[in-house]
Amino acid sequence: MARKLDRQTLDELGIDAALAQANKSRREGGIPIGSALMDPTGTIVALGHNLRVQTGDPTAHAEVVCMRNAGRRRDWRFLTLYSTLSPCVMCTGTTLLHRVPRVVIGENSTFVGGEELFAAHGVELVNLNDQRCVALMKAFIESSPDLWQEDIGDPEA
Amino acid sequence: MARKLDRQTLDELGIDAALAQANKSRREGGIPIGSALMDPTGTIVALGHNLRVQTGDPTAHAEVVCMRNAGRRRDWRFLTLYSTLSPCVMCTGTTLLHRVPRVVIGENSTFVGGEELFAAHGVELVNLNDQRCVALMKAFIESSPDLWQEDIGDPEA
Repeated sequence: MARKLDRQTLDELGIDAALAQANKSRREGGIPIGSALMDPTGTIVALGHNLRVQTGDPTAHAEVVCMRNAGRRRDWRFLTLYSTLSPCVMCTGTTLLHRVPRVVIGENSTFVGGEELFAAHGVELVNLNDQRCVALMKAFIESSPDLWQEDIGDPEA
Repeated sequence: MARKLDRQTLDELGIDAALAQANKSRREGGIPIGSALMDPTGTIVALGHNLRVQTGDPTAHAEVVCMRNAGRRRDWRFLTLYSTLSPCVMCTGTTLLHRVPRVVIGENSTFVGGEELFAAHGVELVNLNDQRCVALMKAFIESSPDLWQEDIGDPEA
């Protein structure tokens, strides 16, 4: 008989899927941030990772790519968005446009995005404080500070 | 001798370029919203229009497509974004991420996007109240209400 997984287990599966995307991007020489979208049954309906280096698209943050890959649909309000990192203001806005009600992040110790905006719109934000995600981002920011600044819109020095 | 065009003339050229994109999308059977990015010399550096119908990408609002087409660059803070319609919260967030300081819109009588968010972040918003843009959106919303609801993330009825 199939077992129904609890939310904590589903969230672990979701962040693992997002982290696998981040690691894929790192191996490609890209920015190591990944995302996943999960429906209420625990099915991953879309994956994505940052594509700035790979395709030259400045809007291709992991969360945007994941929602792009999710395609045209009307069930956003039943989905959970997973991301290895706290979503920036663009990705927060994209989440709000689609009315995704729940966001689970790997960490926000290396970067804090639009978390106040999520709160103001009643989006549930869960921080798993996943040390694998922290280590991946710390290593990237240390090795590629200029690329990281570009990705978060910091003007050049 | 070359004449330096004043801001009002540049804004008219910018919104004309955005409107041409919107009309192109309409002729393709797509959602008729268009955008343009202009640098301080009056050069259009990127164009874009909504691509939801054309490519099935739910993140492909005109402003996002325009910034995607602008590519990797570090001069966002010197650009002006033109859009035929008040940018939604996703497009507002994308503008804020890139720190584009000035947004000129055709109209906000058929839809009001993240204008308060722009104000909170000090982005200058200019509404040209262009009746060509109003007429185009009114005709689209009347003929395709479901597609329009989908594009702005309204849950299905």
